[in-house]
Amino acid sequence: MFGERFKVSVFGESHGPAIGCTIEGAPAAFWLDVEELQKFLGRRSPGKSKTSTSRKEADKVEFLSGVNEHSCFEGSPITAIIRNTDTRSQDYLDLSEVPRPGHADYAAMLKYRGCNDPRGGGHFSGRLTAPICIAGGIAKQILKHKFNCDIETRLEEVGGFLATLRDPNKVILEAKRAGDSVGAIVSCSVFNFPAKIGGPLFDGLEGKIAQAIFGIPAVKGIEFGSGFRGAGLRGSQNNDELFVNTDDEVEAVSNNSGGILGGISTGLGPITFRVAFKPTPSISKPQMSVNMRTMEPVKKLVVKGRHDPCVALRAMPVVEAATAIALYDAWLSESSR
Amino acid sequence: MFGERFKVSVFGESHGPAIGCTIEGAPAAFWLDVEELQKFLGRRSPGKSKTSTSRKEADKVEFLSGVNEHSCFEGSPITAIIRNTDTRSQDYLDLSEVPRPGHADYAAMLKYRGCNDPRGGGHFSGRLTAPICIAGGIAKQILKHKFNCDIETRLEEVGGFLATLRDPNKVILEAKRAGDSVGAIVSCSVFNFPAKIGGPLFDGLEGKIAQAIFGIPAVKGIEFGSGFRGAGLRGSQNNDELFVNTDDEVEAVSNNSGGILGGISTGLGPITFRVAFKPTPSISKPQMSVNMRTMEPVKKLVVKGRHDPCVALRAMPVVEAATAIALYDAWLSESSR
Amino acid sequence: MFGERFKVSVFGESHGPAIGCTIEGAPAAFWLDVEELQKFLGRRSPGKSKTSTSRKEADKVEFLSGVNEHSCFEGSPITAIIRNTDTRSQDYLDLSEVPRPGHADYAAMLKYRGCNDPRGGGHFSGRLTAPICIAGGIAKQILKHKFNCDIETRLEEVGGFLATLRDPNKVILEAKRAGDSVGAIVSCSVFNFPAKIGGPLFDGLEGKIAQAIFGIPAVKGIEFGSGFRGAGLRGSQNNDELFVNTDDEVEAVSNNSGGILGGISTGLGPITFRVAFKPTPSISKPQMSVNMRTMEPVKKLVVKGRHDPCVALRAMPVVEAATAIALYDAWLSESSR
Amino acid sequence: MFGERFKVSVFGESHGPAIGCTIEGAPAAFWLDVEELQKFLGRRSPGKSKTSTSRKEADKVEFLSGVNEHSCFEGSPITAIIRNTDTRSQDYLDLSEVPRPGHADYAAMLKYRGCNDPRGGGHFSGRLTAPICIAGGIAKQILKHKFNCDIETRLEEVGGFLATLRDPNKVILEAKRAGDSVGAIVSCSVFNFPAKIGGPLFDGLEGKIAQAIFGIPAVKGIEFGSGFRGAGLRGSQNNDELFVNTDDEVEAVSNNSGGILGGISTGLGPITFRVAFKPTPSISKPQMSVNMRTMEPVKKLVVKGRHDPCVALRAMPVVEAATAIALYDAWLSESSR
Repeated sequence: MFGERFKVSVFGESHGPAIGCTIEGAPAAFWLDVEELQKFLGRRSPGKSKTSTSRKEADKVEFLSGVNEHSCFEGSPITAIIRNTDTRSQDYLDLSEVPRPGHADYAAMLKYRGCNDPRGGGHFSGRLTAPICIAGGIAKQILKHKFNCDIETRLEEVGGFLATLRDPNKVILEAKRAGDSVGAIVSCSVFNFPAKIGGPLFDGLEGKIAQAIFGIPAVKGIEFGSGFRGAGLRGSQNNDELFVNTDDEVEAVSNNSGGILGGISTGLGPITFRVAFKPTPSISKPQMSVNMRTMEPVKKLVVKGRHDPCVALRAMPVVEAATAIALYDAWLSESSR
Repeated sequence: MFGERFKVSVFGESHGPAIGCTIEGAPAAFWLDVEELQKFLGRRSPGKSKTSTSRKEADKVEFLSGVNEHSCFEGSPITAIIRNTDTRSQDYLDLSEVPRPGHADYAAMLKYRGCNDPRGGGHFSGRLTAPICIAGGIAKQILKHKFNCDIETRLEEVGGFLATLRDPNKVILEAKRAGDSVGAIVSCSVFNFPAKIGGPLFDGLEGKIAQAIFGIPAVKGIEFGSGFRGAGLRGSQNNDELFVNTDDEVEAVSNNSGGILGGISTGLGPITFRVAFKPTPSISKPQMSVNMRTMEPVKKLVVKGRHDPCVALRAMPVVEAATAIALYDAWLSESSR
Repeated sequence: MFGERFKVSVFGESHGPAIGCTIEGAPAAFWLDVEELQKFLGRRSPGKSKTSTSRKEADKVEFLSGVNEHSCFEGSPITAIIRNTDTRSQDYLDLSEVPRPGHADYAAMLKYRGCNDPRGGGHFSGRLTAPICIAGGIAKQILKHKFNCDIETRLEEVGGFLATLRDPNKVILEAKRAGDSVGAIVSCSVFNFPAKIGGPLFDGLEGKIAQAIFGIPAVKGIEFGSGFRGAGLRGSQNNDELFVNTDDEVEAVSNNSGGILGGISTGLGPITFRVAFKPTPSISKPQMSVNMRTMEPVKKLVVKGRHDPCVALRAMPVVEAATAIALYDAWLSESSR
Repeated sequence: MFGERFKVSVFGESHGPAIGCTIEGAPAAFWLDVEELQKFLGRRSPGKSKTSTSRKEADKVEFLSGVNEHSCFEGSPITAIIRNTDTRSQDYLDLSEVPRPGHADYAAMLKYRGCNDPRGGGHFSGRLTAPICIAGGIAKQILKHKFNCDIETRLEEVGGFLATLRDPNKVILEAKRAGDSVGAIVSCSVFNFPAKIGGPLFDGLEGKIAQAIFGIPAVKGIEFGSGFRGAGLRGSQNNDELFVNTDDEVEAVSNNSGGILGGISTGLGPITFRVAFKPTPSISKPQMSVNMRTMEPVKKLVVKGRHDPCVALRAMPVVEAATAIALYDAWLSESSR
């Protein structure tokens, strides 16, 4: 569950009957562009190209409540589901005893005492990012409508190579051919988000965005503005100096702060951050693991199932969605004081 | 305010009568080692060396409630304060109209309509990390007592130099002499934290820790395990393979996951992450800014006041404190299901 | 949304495709008795007798997530739905402009700007108590399993007559025949709930239970133990004196406190409270109202649709459900400190 | 801790160094009338008349943070304390083993394992309603300023006698002379609170107000509008019919709903409710109890200390305060959607 006022709760297992989300706090009488939302979801849908899993899911959103027949929000909680259709559970049956390296399997086996659904990662599955995209796609439309706010992502690095210097698809296919996978770095920029949102200490905007972004499976790092690079600079290099522009407005000469200072949006530049995605843990290269029932070593575990060799590609709309959820919630939490 | 079950709320302004915190959720009948707590607070106190501000504060904790005369928690909310004594407000008077680059001043002026306390950063001040250390020092003692859990930090880089290759104090003093400041990278390791804590998606441990860490002023980035470096690796390099050790226990050959997979602590290695601190924005080198009342440019703003040329040094116990708060809260939120 | 650790979020409209709830915080590996749950839901289902609405709904629970094929909780969020089948929307079409007295219509028209679903009360409908019964039925089974805890309700008064002195069905049918409805008082007793749960001030158990009970449509009052009657007594009459019983245990001579003192369960008697239900606002007797579009008076509004002449009868399992949700959440919030 | 957006956390023990509260969510740049607040607090201060305890406390508010020297809110958390001065701890020393009937002592002994402060009720003390009055007094001023909203209480019944038919002071003094105490019923009316605040089910305004009111020690019941009396009526009697008045506005002929329908404020009448206070449990009449250490019966426990024979009198401003906190929080949670 995420959010204080725009509350999003995600449910479902990768191989259960349906996945979905319940949303509280969306504005009554807001008209939703369902086609736009469906298009947004399409960006993370599988089965599109050689660089993604061959699992095919229509990912068609179905509203159970909160949206009337004119696509208008009724003011009550919105529940939307996506039915699971193309599930090949047999691929996963032998996984219930042998945790896959880099996956949640080991911890989940301990934690849920064997009752969680191991197929396709169950509730841990990347497939659960589809409901995040429903809620985030809605938040994105609201932010666009209210502030003309745009949230954009860009693929910065794949497998250690700058996307500008080497074709990411090539890097991914190379790894795939080797039965392997690659990590990636994605950047995100938010334009026209209002100033003055957030607060010092635990009310900060960075913490709120970070919490939402780490909700995306495979994310292992986040940095705002100059981030880790800025940690190697001096104050005189990293500070964003201010001046008065020709329209008599305050402007900053740089945006090392990533648009946030003291936890508050400054409005002096887009909110910018970069996200580190680890390489997909599911690989067909043999790996060592352990049979948890027999406690025998498994020398050469080959992970079957259909997987993306680089999750970051399809995760880009999810980054936008999580950001939209965090920012709309932050705005709602502030606006009336 | 932070936490769902170990709730910490921090209050105070740098130059007001007192700073402090209110804590709900500490266990009744827990005996607090007050001397240990005071020593922990001492690690972030100013006025100790040439590399920190010359402001001197005893930072003596005073309990207003929740702790009885035998230093035992009563089960009711704990409120602790530290009185402000050495405040030189006159240093800040001219700042109320001219925002300092890299500081929250500009956003705060817009947001609080001139009613916030500009002196020493008010509620944005690094001084507010002292109450975080009170709450975190308490959480640290509880975690130590319950699980023999240790939380340790290390200075990794200062001003772009590895701490192992160049004396950090030297790097800091050099910058200070130049009227400038430096950023730094701090790593944190948590030993003996129990497995199975956390959950997938928005319940993840990384998101919770990140939210707490971004509550520390000047933090601009966080990465778990192999983090941004891992984003450049392949799955076969980044996955932590598993084996059975001679004690018939499952063990991992590496800890690229930073002890967390699928948002859950694995118990297969310490929880590890790295934090990027930006360079202290307060520098005496002249910078450009704007007088917000007259909208005249200020060509050469020199920030007076007493400031640390590198906040990361004194922030190390604060990283430990924020981590302890996040982890104890995460554990409390799980333990009885 | 209700709860801090057993979080229940209810969604759906009376005449939409489905109603349901999402539950976080149920214990992994708990085996649910689905038949028992379905039987519990049956107690509030309509269409059973002459004293309830003739709308017939199977109210069959369908789990979309969180429960595996062996009816075992997986540890992930549980989403359950009930499909709406027998909906006669045409009964409600003329209501969209004329608020029914005693209903939420007037406030909802202002608030949701015409986008809420007016049919059958939409999200305000008593039908939404079915999802509360799903979540509460689950909590009830957990409490029974953990503590052998029983939650029971009794019909105390109907239409001003003590249920022991005049047959409630007769009172209800009399009102129904007159095109009218009646209110009622329901009592609830909780046996074997553990002591020591709750806390002083805003952490009190009475406040938590009250919040859950007022979540049931038509509830207008709640009193614990001797309640309003106790307000007319003296301390020496109302205090529950203590003694040592023959098993060397502390016992109370009376239970005027309703099992709660200082906001904490005492374990010295069942938790007891009484709930006031107003008479069903939907009556076929003509009433005055206003056409909100034309602002013309409506002299003789006759509310059509199929309605219970006394909601309290079918609301009794809902009282048990809301109580179970509140108490299980309270217990979870306490147990690990 | 109470509230989602106007968060109030109360701390302190009756006989510790200080009591107080921390408040988040008060509007920046709001000017507080400190004198008015102090006067409001004066209404619940002890030592004023023969019908209240002879303990004398100045109850002078001291702001540690969040309020600047011009009594203007800075936008940061507000912490206010009241120092305890007139504490006669020796009165309570013998209570640490023998729970007083009608008090939290028994449950607290079990729960806090002897570490809570037994003197004067510790954190359970009625004295802790002073910080509620600080936070509520602030909320009251904000509501007055924003909406010209007035919150008023009236003493309805004392010891079973209608206040209009028998002088309450006389009833109280009579009980006091007999070494006894009396309960009371207090009504509360809120004028000019905006319509459209609240929501169906668990978002309802009744539940929110009830939760706040049950945070006041000694409250055992609450009813809105016609409440328990309404439960004895028919729908045609209890529904508030609507008409168009001469100013062409919708008006209700009665206010049996207490200004709330479907959990939402209607604006068609003041929000009204009645609160049942139990008789003060501390009485000097001898009562039976048990020595919890020796498990010996205590035949004639006489409760010493200075106590109000009727808490409701001084609790009236506390009812107003708790109501103001709940309503301002509810309004903040709604206003920007």
